[in-house]
Amino acid sequence: MTTLPKTYRRVVLVRRPPGEPAESDFRVEEAAMPEPKHGEVLVKVAYLSLDPYQRGRMRDAASYAAPVGLGEVMTGGIVGEVVKSNNARFAVGDIVEDRLGWQEYAVGGAATMRKVDPSLAPISTANGVLGMPGMTAYFGLLEVGQPKPGETIVVSAASGAVGQVVGQIGKIMGCRVVGIAGGTKKCTFVTGELGFDACVDYKAEKDLDAALRAACPNGIDVYFDNVGGEISDAVLRGINFFGRVALCGSISQYNATTPPMGPRLLGTFVGKRVRAQGFIVTDFAGKYDAAMRQMGEWIRNGRLKYREDIVQGIDKAPRAFIGLLRGENFGKLLVKM
Amino acid sequence: MTTLPKTYRRVVLVRRPPGEPAESDFRVEEAAMPEPKHGEVLVKVAYLSLDPYQRGRMRDAASYAAPVGLGEVMTGGIVGEVVKSNNARFAVGDIVEDRLGWQEYAVGGAATMRKVDPSLAPISTANGVLGMPGMTAYFGLLEVGQPKPGETIVVSAASGAVGQVVGQIGKIMGCRVVGIAGGTKKCTFVTGELGFDACVDYKAEKDLDAALRAACPNGIDVYFDNVGGEISDAVLRGINFFGRVALCGSISQYNATTPPMGPRLLGTFVGKRVRAQGFIVTDFAGKYDAAMRQMGEWIRNGRLKYREDIVQGIDKAPRAFIGLLRGENFGKLLVKM
Repeated sequence: MTTLPKTYRRVVLVRRPPGEPAESDFRVEEAAMPEPKHGEVLVKVAYLSLDPYQRGRMRDAASYAAPVGLGEVMTGGIVGEVVKSNNARFAVGDIVEDRLGWQEYAVGGAATMRKVDPSLAPISTANGVLGMPGMTAYFGLLEVGQPKPGETIVVSAASGAVGQVVGQIGKIMGCRVVGIAGGTKKCTFVTGELGFDACVDYKAEKDLDAALRAACPNGIDVYFDNVGGEISDAVLRGINFFGRVALCGSISQYNATTPPMGPRLLGTFVGKRVRAQGFIVTDFAGKYDAAMRQMGEWIRNGRLKYREDIVQGIDKAPRAFIGLLRGENFGKLLVKM
Repeated sequence: MTTLPKTYRRVVLVRRPPGEPAESDFRVEEAAMPEPKHGEVLVKVAYLSLDPYQRGRMRDAASYAAPVGLGEVMTGGIVGEVVKSNNARFAVGDIVEDRLGWQEYAVGGAATMRKVDPSLAPISTANGVLGMPGMTAYFGLLEVGQPKPGETIVVSAASGAVGQVVGQIGKIMGCRVVGIAGGTKKCTFVTGELGFDACVDYKAEKDLDAALRAACPNGIDVYFDNVGGEISDAVLRGINFFGRVALCGSISQYNATTPPMGPRLLGTFVGKRVRAQGFIVTDFAGKYDAAMRQMGEWIRNGRLKYREDIVQGIDKAPRAFIGLLRGENFGKLLVKM
């Protein structure tokens, strides 16, 4: 083991932005290297995961999880190496994953920390396809969306961390899969590399309803919604009788400064018997192991691919996160330390 | 059997109103008494059921059911007596129920026609608590809303044909039940006669959110939605984690002339894991018999009461229907011939 530095860098929240975050809402600061106490470990972070849900933690509002306090380290999943251990479950050199925040080193060791097997896949996947976003896709599609072979699935933010996995599982399940993404590059990747049947470019299409109708000749049976807003309005106008909507996120609304308004949808769900259901990945925590094994097998068989968008250095995290909320990333967004 | 008249009266649709219907959108006309063919019966209608869904049939738009054509008899459920029969399933004197339209006499005999046992309850209940509205309440609450004992149920249009049954079944299930209705008279009936725990008067309350919070100290677990619009917005702001919304109707929106707008709700469902599900009573047709037996038992035990609002004469149907869409009825609205 090499000698540890005396300090490390971390990103704290210094202001709660009402709308789009600015870099000045965050501060990159130096901190003294912590010493793990009994039961704790010190982790040298390899990758930090940037995910849309973290925008919610910047808000001081009732939610399913507590907000980040001002001056506190931003919430985020990490994967890294144990460099000191006072916990019998973890040895120095173990690769571990947990939600330890935007920082280069972190003290962990809680029950939520899990070991990652680096022989199965690159360890960055513990924050992606074999981590929270992958589990979100797996359970959101299969348990909430409940697609049947031959049905049509539409997924928004199709090239993102969750969307890319949703579509590929949909194909494995024997469905027609249509992505929605912004720009030719993302759409070409989604149909070419990932094997979706079609991808609608919401930035290029003047008539999203018509584009979706063309891409979904049998209508839409399952909508996996990562974005909300006008894109979802268009999808829901084309949803079939007995359609299911897996409500995963609403990234288009996260920076809204006033309560977002739109067409009233619930009345349109009655006659069509549409079911819309919100979910959070941790609801399925008891089933992660089996899902991870299945996903790992699909990766090894080449049936499940993934794309990462990696930025270098913790100081780049705020800018990258702002870009994530704008849809500027291309694949699962990670910060490499 | 008395001699039949040579003519009878019926109500046909003559114009599709873009907004609120007017009496001039309907025409009460005389028609020659029909002769039932082979397999058919002639029914003398005793009661016609007026229900909100009939507004949808006045619209020439894709739906789960075909619209009423211009010049055609308005859709509606009836209960009446067989006065001529060319169908071995039905004898003269049988009381039957089917969707035969707004008319004093009708030819029926289809597979959907069912016999009503007049010894169990007044035959008008075949259009109400022991008919379509009762089944809507039963299956919408139990199968879509899935309340558990001790949970809080809110039902809008609480004194209406469906709402009154929803709340009483909720009480039988061991839930706290809160109605929403317009006016003191309806609210007093709902809590006094029907035994709901509370009723919020949406016409009197200036702050519906606060009134609902006061009536639902443990939040709202199940919302049975008959009305949509701003009332539902308020309820859904108070819905609990893992809440369920049984989407039965949206009467507040049925006369809308432009697509109704409101707060975007689906994004708020994610973190709370809310499930909103549309349904139509006929989805549960295979289970009607068992439900009817259960409901009949509750009526005989005095656990399930019902209130009817009866107008006299087919010529009063258009005006009564317009009032129904305004919430002017008090209880299940029927036209007695």
